[in-house]
Amino acid sequence: MREAHVVGAGQSDFGAFPDESYRSLSLTAVREALDGAPGDESLSPGAVDECFLGTLGVGGRQLGLSAPAVARHVGVDAPATRVENACAAGGYAVRAATRAVRAGDADLALVVGVEVMNDLGESLPYWLGVSGETAYERLAGTTFSGVYAQMASAHMDTYGTTREDLSRVAVKNHHNGARNPHAHLAFECTLAEATDGPRVADPLGLYHCCPTTDGAAAVLVASAEVAADLARPSARVAGVGAGSDAVGLFDRDTYTAIPASRRAADRAYDRAGTGPDDLDLAEVHDCFSIAELLAYEDLGLCEPGESATLLQSGATELDGELPVNTSGGLKSKGHPIGATGTGQVVEVYDQLAGRAGERQVDGAEVGLTHNVGGSGGAAVVHVLDGGESA
Amino acid sequence: MREAHVVGAGQSDFGAFPDESYRSLSLTAVREALDGAPGDESLSPGAVDECFLGTLGVGGRQLGLSAPAVARHVGVDAPATRVENACAAGGYAVRAATRAVRAGDADLALVVGVEVMNDLGESLPYWLGVSGETAYERLAGTTFSGVYAQMASAHMDTYGTTREDLSRVAVKNHHNGARNPHAHLAFECTLAEATDGPRVADPLGLYHCCPTTDGAAAVLVASAEVAADLARPSARVAGVGAGSDAVGLFDRDTYTAIPASRRAADRAYDRAGTGPDDLDLAEVHDCFSIAELLAYEDLGLCEPGESATLLQSGATELDGELPVNTSGGLKSKGHPIGATGTGQVVEVYDQLAGRAGERQVDGAEVGLTHNVGGSGGAAVVHVLDGGESA
Repeated sequence: MREAHVVGAGQSDFGAFPDESYRSLSLTAVREALDGAPGDESLSPGAVDECFLGTLGVGGRQLGLSAPAVARHVGVDAPATRVENACAAGGYAVRAATRAVRAGDADLALVVGVEVMNDLGESLPYWLGVSGETAYERLAGTTFSGVYAQMASAHMDTYGTTREDLSRVAVKNHHNGARNPHAHLAFECTLAEATDGPRVADPLGLYHCCPTTDGAAAVLVASAEVAADLARPSARVAGVGAGSDAVGLFDRDTYTAIPASRRAADRAYDRAGTGPDDLDLAEVHDCFSIAELLAYEDLGLCEPGESATLLQSGATELDGELPVNTSGGLKSKGHPIGATGTGQVVEVYDQLAGRAGERQVDGAEVGLTHNVGGSGGAAVVHVLDGGESA
Repeated sequence: MREAHVVGAGQSDFGAFPDESYRSLSLTAVREALDGAPGDESLSPGAVDECFLGTLGVGGRQLGLSAPAVARHVGVDAPATRVENACAAGGYAVRAATRAVRAGDADLALVVGVEVMNDLGESLPYWLGVSGETAYERLAGTTFSGVYAQMASAHMDTYGTTREDLSRVAVKNHHNGARNPHAHLAFECTLAEATDGPRVADPLGLYHCCPTTDGAAAVLVASAEVAADLARPSARVAGVGAGSDAVGLFDRDTYTAIPASRRAADRAYDRAGTGPDDLDLAEVHDCFSIAELLAYEDLGLCEPGESATLLQSGATELDGELPVNTSGGLKSKGHPIGATGTGQVVEVYDQLAGRAGERQVDGAEVGLTHNVGGSGGAAVVHVLDGGESA
């Protein structure tokens, strides 16, 4: 079987850009991915032979056929397909691209993840909710902060996790995001600020929730042959795993874990022939602070119930043993739904290529991305290995 | 490289079912695909190791994460991904499933195509339009019937095609649909009725337009090994091709062809090592009658401008040399957006298995499906070969 390699990555700034469009943001990200860093061999859109768009697709823009619309706008004349799994759309789009390469259907595949939400006005709450389980959650008035608050309450009750632990996730990720020129909320915060913020959905406060973000991210995935011929860094997609589950939290076996994440991680580790101990960094889905703690446990970075202890140890800080969310994560870098999972791969590629600036993890060779749809109806995990790259 | 085989297919009735849900219709289709025909070895949902959902996704239902929601409802515990390319969503979902099998990621993949639209009430026109090009077509008031009317006018002007030719498509497809127990508009019509129907968008009349249909279709795609072990008919996916283009008609090179269809067909024929002459039947995307005529030309069934002559010759009728839309097509069987492309594969599978009842094409061994998104922003073609099946 052929192998797939990430050979390029780019992104727009993440933020609130009501005057930008899904196409203009996508073009910025794609150009950066095609051009590469100074000194890289540049690539032409004409070299792309398959395109995937990860987007939830909201509001009054191109809801159907957005993939061909974006492909056309960025100059790519190739089959284009939209992949959607709510907040995991971007990660699933990367998965689809690696498969196109591995199946021998593409030598160079482009992934674009994008979302524009800050121009939605009064319809924003509707569109933010459409990935919630419809019958028993969304139409009953439950929001995503409400669902994750239930998970946080359950974790606190079961394992003694505290609101300060939730705040520590925010402090760490804002610390990282303040060093990311593309981050939406690029400022630091203190433990007291994070804990004392306005309550959103008890026990979650404002600093325990990610912002509403616009942005785009792009990734290029190539065959081993193409990757070897290109004068630019590459990272082998060592393993990919995906998992699904009930869309509604009420319908799952547990409130203190996201089983889809576990399934996705187990498959990715298995295919990569690696495990948590082999990782040098990870980008995980911290849409709410509790989600990062659950991710530690679901991805096997620690035992169930031990995530707060792991966090408190400093191991997941930028200078720790296994830095998590060096980009700032969804909390600080931002969460432009469809762009999030693709953007995680951008960060890991940049880290493995030694291009993460102030956020650089020394000697990073193996990185993981973890992208969740909704409250856990879908999850996808990638393990990237840059150790074989020039 | 592994090969992919269709080993099962099922569908709900197509029609107006405001009391059904996307899940209930999907379950009907999936059960039929898993159970197979009497005498077939039945399959369990637990055997499915990957799931794709083709749907535009409309109205107040599960807009995000609908793929895991459907997978859960039909008892499938596997990664589930929504694939969207407007009216070609179902065909692109089949393409994704064959790729999952060919890449070695799945031994048995399930495709579900579904749409429910007849409960939308006043929001129906909005949702029917969201795949139109947003800026210069949809928001300017152009509907899909309007866009296809422009293509019809251009074809009539360039090649002398007549409104009676458009009507002949309707007469043929209603003849076939009247023999399909699942068809939405299962009645015959005369040339005069089809020509004299109320004008919708000149030159298109009511009988030149497909209905607004609810329904679901399901297809099972397996590896060669699994297919060989199963006591049920299989059809090898000999070739798949896809193509994209500008979403807006105004932005394309021609009004008298759908270039994305040509690209998709060329790729599919090339991979299959076949051509139009090898086909025993074809299901083509006749959302409007002009679209079937364009398909004849774009798929190479005849030269550009010769489609009306081919149609008049009777070659594409049920007892002709190359029957087209034996199911009744979108015109008579109906057009439940996301279910359409998947449903085309259901018809071809049934034909190749000799299970098409009154519509059976004698000795059918090779069939083609052709599914278009919007007015031609995306197209996907499959060539299925049942000749090697038991």
